Formats: sequence, structure tokens, C-alpha cells
Amino acid sequence: MTIQAAIGDLSTLLGQRLTCSKGELAQHGQSETHFPISPPDAVAYPETTEEVASVLKICAEHHCPVVGWGTGTSLEGQAQAFQGGVCVDFARMNKVLEISQEDMHVRVQPGVTRQALNEELRATGLFFPVDPGANASIGGMASTRASGTTAVRYGTMRDNVMALEVVTAKGEVIRTGSAARKSSAGYDLTGLFVGSEGTLGLITELTLRLQGIPEAISSAVCAFPEVDQAVNCVIDTIQMGIPVARIELVDIDSVRAVNVYSGMTLPPKPHLLLEFHGSDTGVAEQAETFGAIAEEHGGSGFDWATKPEDRNALWTMRHNAYHAIIASRPGCRAVVTDVCVPISRLAEAVETCRADLKAHDVNGPILGHVGDGNFHAILMFDPDDADEKQRVLDASRRLVDLALSLGGTSTGEHGIGIGKLGYMSREHGPAWSVMGAIKTALDPDNIMNPGKLVPPRN
Amino acid sequence: MTIQAAIGDLSTLLGQRLTCSKGELAQHGQSETHFPISPPDAVAYPETTEEVASVLKICAEHHCPVVGWGTGTSLEGQAQAFQGGVCVDFARMNKVLEISQEDMHVRVQPGVTRQALNEELRATGLFFPVDPGANASIGGMASTRASGTTAVRYGTMRDNVMALEVVTAKGEVIRTGSAARKSSAGYDLTGLFVGSEGTLGLITELTLRLQGIPEAISSAVCAFPEVDQAVNCVIDTIQMGIPVARIELVDIDSVRAVNVYSGMTLPPKPHLLLEFHGSDTGVAEQAETFGAIAEEHGGSGFDWATKPEDRNALWTMRHNAYHAIIASRPGCRAVVTDVCVPISRLAEAVETCRADLKAHDVNGPILGHVGDGNFHAILMFDPDDADEKQRVLDASRRLVDLALSLGGTSTGEHGIGIGKLGYMSREHGPAWSVMGAIKTALDPDNIMNPGKLVPPRN
Ligand SMILES: Cc1cc2nc3c(=O)[nH]c(=O)nc-3n(C[C@H](O)[C@H](O)[C@H](O)COP(=O)(O)OP(=O)(O)OC[C@H]3O[C@@H](n4cnc5c(N)ncnc54)[C@H](O)[C@@H]3O)c2cc1C
Ligand SMILES: Cc1cc2nc3c(=O)[nH]c(=O)nc-3n(C[C@H](O)[C@H](O)[C@H](O)COP(=O)(O)OP(=O)(O)OC[C@H]3O[C@@H](n4cnc5c(N)ncnc54)[C@H](O)[C@@H]3O)c2cc1C
Repeated sequence: MTIQAAIGDLSTLLGQRLTCSKGELAQHGQSETHFPISPPDAVAYPETTEEVASVLKICAEHHCPVVGWGTGTSLEGQAQAFQGGVCVDFARMNKVLEISQEDMHVRVQPGVTRQALNEELRATGLFFPVDPGANASIGGMASTRASGTTAVRYGTMRDNVMALEVVTAKGEVIRTGSAARKSSAGYDLTGLFVGSEGTLGLITELTLRLQGIPEAISSAVCAFPEVDQAVNCVIDTIQMGIPVARIELVDIDSVRAVNVYSGMTLPPKPHLLLEFHGSDTGVAEQAETFGAIAEEHGGSGFDWATKPEDRNALWTMRHNAYHAIIASRPGCRAVVTDVCVPISRLAEAVETCRADLKAHDVNGPILGHVGDGNFHAILMFDPDDADEKQRVLDASRRLVDLALSLGGTSTGEHGIGIGKLGYMSREHGPAWSVMGAIKTALDPDNIMNPGKLVPPRN
Repeated sequence: MTIQAAIGDLSTLLGQRLTCSKGELAQHGQSETHFPISPPDAVAYPETTEEVASVLKICAEHHCPVVGWGTGTSLEGQAQAFQGGVCVDFARMNKVLEISQEDMHVRVQPGVTRQALNEELRATGLFFPVDPGANASIGGMASTRASGTTAVRYGTMRDNVMALEVVTAKGEVIRTGSAARKSSAGYDLTGLFVGSEGTLGLITELTLRLQGIPEAISSAVCAFPEVDQAVNCVIDTIQMGIPVARIELVDIDSVRAVNVYSGMTLPPKPHLLLEFHGSDTGVAEQAETFGAIAEEHGGSGFDWATKPEDRNALWTMRHNAYHAIIASRPGCRAVVTDVCVPISRLAEAVETCRADLKAHDVNGPILGHVGDGNFHAILMFDPDDADEKQRVLDASRRLVDLALSLGGTSTGEHGIGIGKLGYMSREHGPAWSVMGAIKTALDPDNIMNPGKLVPPRN
């Protein structure tokens, strides 16, 4: 078998760092959501770019599928080995290689997690802003074009990856981008690999743009009678150009779940959670303007926190919201939707979604990065209830249809994997074939995370 | 002949809007810089996407080269038809199709110029920030990944193009991106076409992100004894995180030229030109902080302008600086360098460049978008003096070598065309072949702007 032949060679290359142990395989066959466990045939733990290149050369020779693995938190089955093959786990390539305070960038290996990176940056006065709810790896985040609560101010991985080192499907090491802030030197390969979910190559190093920790930070919480008032408040805030650093929606069901899970005492109403970054006066100005807008939309209990521990509690709660919601219904699995629409259509999208879930008896708290027009419904189901699972999948599909009809996208930040593959043709039309042509050009033997993102090869 | 056969069919398609008149051909064979005139065999003026698609189908059938044309201001020979063929001039596709004030974006045809666009936006309170020195077309600007004085605050075309309609080399119409603020739905094709200089397809529509006109704007001018003090002042300003909207360097030779050309009376010293955007207090705060930094670096005559007419005079002068410099030496041609380096290396880069020009007796005023680490030396030469031209080309090459050795790029914003083709291999190594593979996949017959940007086809 070609996979077995590859494993033989890989084991010679990596020794103990190539494993076929049942436990490790099972662990690397899981995902956070509803896809069936699909273990790889082996897990490799390379330590250097050269090793990754050797791994890919071996896999290319044997036409063996290769699936990258950061922390496995992606939500559309991206890191699962549906066609078997070798999982390349970047856990041992997790170093921060170089911090440039002057240029405000950092060079890292892909396996470092966002929290570990910010730990290392702590003394520098700089931070890396992109913060998905999970403590994901930077390589995985780049590969799914992740974002988080701060994208409304600092952008997504698209905006914050300056340069990459990538090993191609042939096992060649290339570098894309540079440490310069901008460049017009040819095709934007960095941008092409960001969001490519390991289907074009494996990322072995990243240069990331950093931000200065602002002079002043304050958080705020504000309750609204109804979700649409909260959403309309967001729309006005964005349209006014208030440079909020974070503006997150949690609906009433989410509030109930986080109150229980994180021991909060938020009133059972839809809330906006905010953060303002700037100078002392700038932050005060922003909060004041926001407060006035919130009031117009029936916001109440507008409450500030400038103490770091209060802020941390708030954002830890927000980052744990997914787990809080899942925990609110023991034993459930979930489909996490991820549509993103133009901000002017956000209220319509959220309202239609809520009504639809209600009409179809689907249990789905809503929360999201509403400043970007991006929100998630956590559609829970009993894994033993086929009917409920079907209702959930149908609701998820209707929501994507809605988002596309409003000029939006099926996925604001989670990516395609296999979960959203069925929407690609509708979302992109013939442009999806162009993606397929690029994939074929860069990975002619279709060994890089096969079966994901691009049209199935004939 | 294949080109002649294509012209026959195109002329049936477009009638009068396909021309082979000597004058038009010559005009479309020129560039602003030092490349020889290379006229196309015909110029097409399509009016709709469908016509562009038909043009490309005809050219594909006959393997006829196709070169897009916006306003022809690109500086590396990008729009010149070195292999003949058909020039597709977008002058008649210059409409603003839809302005969304709520979502702060606009849909335009590629032929609209940046000034015409901002004229149309005037009543909306919104503006499009990217501003190369020339009044370029939006399609051309996207194709070269252009930027300008405001990129330090608002980014380049990379950051401001949200979605595209593109006609591929086969004549197929595709749409990339969406009106959502972010998306993880597959490869970033928008980012791939931006900066591709018409080598992958022709852009027929663009959705652009807009900015709100800030509540307060002020400009400032500050003189420095020496260039390195000005540059170090820039470095500190950026590192302090002051969100300057513009921060431009003009060296002493540039100042002399603009004084004559634009009737200014700046003291003959290196200057920084700045603009601050924000609230009234925010702008005052920024200017104050900058003033203090400038003083530390020997800055003098720090002067503010809040009156729109003063600001306009300043930025018109800056936008005309290239022409001012060229006019300072009647009959000259110029090689415009465009390196961009990490900000920490900017002083070193500028100083080394100046010393090198002096040592080799090259006449080259320096100016640039220094907040991004990007600067231009306008290397003038007498077109009849082969020796001087060679000295200029050598100096340009040494400057690129320097920038690459400092971790920078050969071109911050002007692009590759044929002028920088010779540096691509050095800058990108094997990644340049990956660009070639993408080109081959999307344009197998090499009809789209052949001979530019990617490795020559064997
Ligand atoms: C509770 C929770 C909250 C979340 N919140 C958010 C959120 O707010 N925003 C958001 O964007 N996402 C969110 N996610 C999704 C997930 O965290 C992101 O998709 C994240 O980017 C995945 O990173 P990872 O390291 O876990 O990648 P993995 O899941 O390990 O891999 C993701 C993909 O990248 C590939 N890959 C991994 N490493 C590499 C590499 N070095 N080179 C090439 N390919 C590689 C894998 O093959 C796979 O295709 C959340 C997930 C959970 C469970
Ligand atoms: C005085 C002066 C100052 C300048 N200052 C700057 C500056 O500050 N910053 C900067 O970035 N540049 C600057 N430039 C360079 C130039 O203005 C930019 O490169 C600009 O983007 C070119 O736009 P254009 O419409 O003239 O494009 P063109 O020169 O007509 O074309 C540029 C390239 O794009 C292709 N193209 C054009 N339209 C399309 C389309 N619709 N679809 C596909 N391909 C197309 C062409 O084939 C060509 O390859 C300056 C130039 C001059 C003369």
C-alpha cells in the first residue's frame, strides 16, 4: 500500500516521532463538532522545516495524503484525515523565533498557540490581536484565515500575516512576503496560503504583525431589551466610525449559559460586550459616544470596567461561551454556523435566523463578532436523535442561503473543510473552479489535505 | 497571422471601438519612464463585461496577446505591449455603479479614476483613500497593488479591494470575494488578482472599502537639518503608534524642485509632510505628540494647516512632485526606484542610497511614503547619454540589492512589469516558480500580458 510504504520511510526519518499508536490516531481523528472520527494512519511530529520537507518528499513519492494539525480546534473537519494518510502535528515546532520591537513584528513556528505567543510578548508592550475562542495554533489560524473578537479593529489573519515559509507538495521550501510593510512584487502568495487549510502546502514559519498595547483600555457591557436593538446599536456604532476594539453580541440563551458556566450575573437579556483601545481621552470619548448610541437603542446598565481583572473575567467568559453553551445541554453535539453579512443586513440576518430556528424547533443560542457582520448560532442536537440532527443541518443550510442572498459569505472565519464544501459552488460559481485549477497546479497529485475546500478531483 | 485574425474578429465585435490608428497605437505604446515605445497592434474600447468576455474569447481562440490599459501611468512598463497584440483600454468602463453609505463600500467599473471616484463620493461623507501620485484608474491601481500617501493609515489596494469581477483568459466571467467584511470561504482570489498586473485576467468590476471623512483633519510641515533626522523622526512616530494619516519625506533636491514647479516657498531642507485624521481632540493630541518627537530630532518650523485650501495646496504639490522633479531637468527621462524596507532599516536604506548616488554621480532626488518604509529616488538621465543611463540602471540595481539585504522588497507599490523582472528570482527564490505555476494554470496559452511579472515560459 502506498500509505504503508510512506509510513515505513517516515518512520526511518523520524523514529519515535512517527507514531501509529491507537490513542494518538484516535485523538488526531477527532474534531470539536459533529463529524465522525476519521483517524490518520500515522502521526508525525517534525521539529524542523527540513524534516517537514523530507516528510513531504516521502509523501509525494508515495502519493500519501498529508494533513496538517495545529491544535485540532477547527470546526469544519479541516484537520481530520477522511482519506487516511499522515497527520503532521506541529506541536514540536512551537517556538517564537524572533521578536522585533522596532518593526513590531514577530517570527514564529506554526505550532505556537496564540496564548503562548502573547505570554512571550508580554514584556515587550506589544501583542498579537487575533483571538479565536480556542487557544489555537498560529499555523492553524493562518490556515483557516481565523479571526476573533478584535478583528473589527485589527483585522483577521489575512491582515496580520506578513510573510510565510511554506513547504510545497513537492517538498520544496519557499518563502512568501517579506518584513516590509507592503510590496507589489508579484502575486500575493502569502494571501493565497492564508486560508488554504493545508491544501496547498504546510506552513513552517510565519511573520506576524504586532500591535502596541494601547495606553488605555476599557471594557463595557450593555443590555438590550431585544436582539434587534442590540444589532442596530452595533450598526450605528460601526457606521459612526467609532474604532471599537471589540463589539460582541451574546443573545439571551447565551447569557443564561455563560452565567451558569462562568459564574456571571448578567441580567437575562441580549448583551453587547465591548472594548475600547486608545489614549485616556480617546477611550473616554469612544465610550461616551457609544453610550449615547446604546441609549437610543434602549440599551441599559451600560457598565464600564477599566480594571484588568474585570476585563479579563469578561473576555474569558466570552471566550468560553461556546463551551458554556455546549455544557448547557449535556451530551449534545453542535453545528456551529458562521455566516457573515454586510453590516447593513446584519439585523435582518440575525432576526431571520432566530425566527427560522424557532419555527423549526432548533435549539441555537446566537453570539458573534457582530462588528464585522459575523455571527454564530450554536445549533445543538442529541447525537442519537437523527431527526433533530437533520433539522439542525437543514437550519444551517437555510442560514447560509440567507447570508448569500444578502451579499454575505457562508463562513466569516471558520473556513470550509468538508463542512461547507457543499456551499462553495453556490457561493463562488465558476470562481470555485479557478480555486481548483490553482490546487491542481500546486498539488498535482492531490496529496495535501485531499477532499477539502476545492472541487473534488475527477 | 494569429494577431491579425483576432483583430478581424474584434473589429466585427466592436466596430469603431476597435482601432488600429497610428496615433492611438503609439499613445498606448508609451510609458511614463524609460522603456522604448512598444505599441499594440490594436486598441479595443469595450463598454461592458460581456464585451470584455467576447474580446478574451476571441483572443484565446487566436492566441493573441491581451494587455489591459487603465491610464497608462504604471512605471515598470506594465501596460506596454512588448509582444504586440490587443490593448484593452477601460476608458469607456468608468462608471460608479453603486455607493453603499451604510456598508461604506462602492462598486465601480475599472476605468474610473481615483479623482473621479472621490468627486462622486463627495456628497456622501465617505472617501476612497488610496492615492498614487498619478490620477490612475482603479482597475490599474488594483492590478499593480498601488498605494500612496495614505497607506500608512488606510492600507494599500490589497487592503481596500473587497471583491472583484474578473474575465479569465478563457473569457469566463468570475466573481471573487463578497460584500461581507471578512470571509474564510476558500482561497483569497481577490488578493491573488490584486497585484497580478493583468497577467491572470482582466478586472471588469471592483468593490472597494470606503472610509468616513474624519471629523477633523490637519496638515503639518516640518523641516529637518538632515535626511537621517527626518527619517529617524518617522521611525519614532510609527513606533509610538501615532496613527498619522500621511507622513511623507521630500529631500532637499525634491524641495527645490517643488518650490519652482508649484510656487512653494519651503526652506531648502529635507521636510516631512504630515496629515492627521481624527476627532478634534484626537488630531490635536497627535500633532502635539508628533511635534515633540520632531523637536527631539532637530525638526523646525513645525507648521499646521487646518484650512482645506492650505491642505489641498500641500498635497497637490506632493502629488506633483514627480513632475516637478522631471521638469527640473528638461528633456530628461527617469528610472523611479521603489524599494520598501522594514521601518527599523529605513534610515540606513535612505542614507546608503544617498551616499551611493553621490559616489556614482547620479542625479536622484528622494521622496517617499516613509511611514511604510517605502521611498523613491527619481534617477534622472539624458536619454542620449548611454553612459549616464547605465549609471542610473546600476544604481537602481544596487538599491534593490540593498533593500533585499535589509529584509525589504524591490517594489513597495509600483510593481514588476518588465522593469523589475530581473529581481524576481533574487527576491522570491523558488516562490517565483510557484507564481509561474499559477500563471500557467490560469492562462495556459500565455495570452494575458505575456512577458511580465512571472518567469518566462520555456
Ligand atoms: C470553542 C471554539 C471557539 C472558536 N472560536 C473561533 C473564533 O472566534 N474565530 C475563528 O476564526 N475560529 C474559531 N474557532 C475555530 C478554530 O479555533 C480556528 O479554526 C483555528 O484557526 C484552528 O486552529 P488550530 O490550530 O486548531 O488548527 P487545526 O484545527 O489543527 O487545523 C486547521 C486547518 O489548518 C491546517 N493546518 C494546521 N496547521 C497547519 C500548518 N502549519 N500548515 C498548513 N496547514 C495547517 C489543518 O490541516 C486544517 O486544515 C473556534 C473553535 C472552538 C473549538
Ligand atoms: C507621477 C506618478 C506618480 C505615481 N505615484 C505612485 C504612487 O504614489 N503609488 C503607486 O502605487 N503608484 C504610483 N505611480 C504608478 C501608477 O500610477 C500606478 O502603478 C497605477 O496603479 C497605475 O494605474 P493605471 O490606471 O495608470 O494603470 P496602467 O498603467 O494602465 O496599467 C497598469 C497595469 O495594470 C493592468 N491593467 C490595467 N487595467 C486593468 C484591468 N482592468 N484589469 C486587469 N489589468 C489591468 C495593465 O495591463 C498593466 O499591467 C505613479 C505614477 C506616476 C506617473
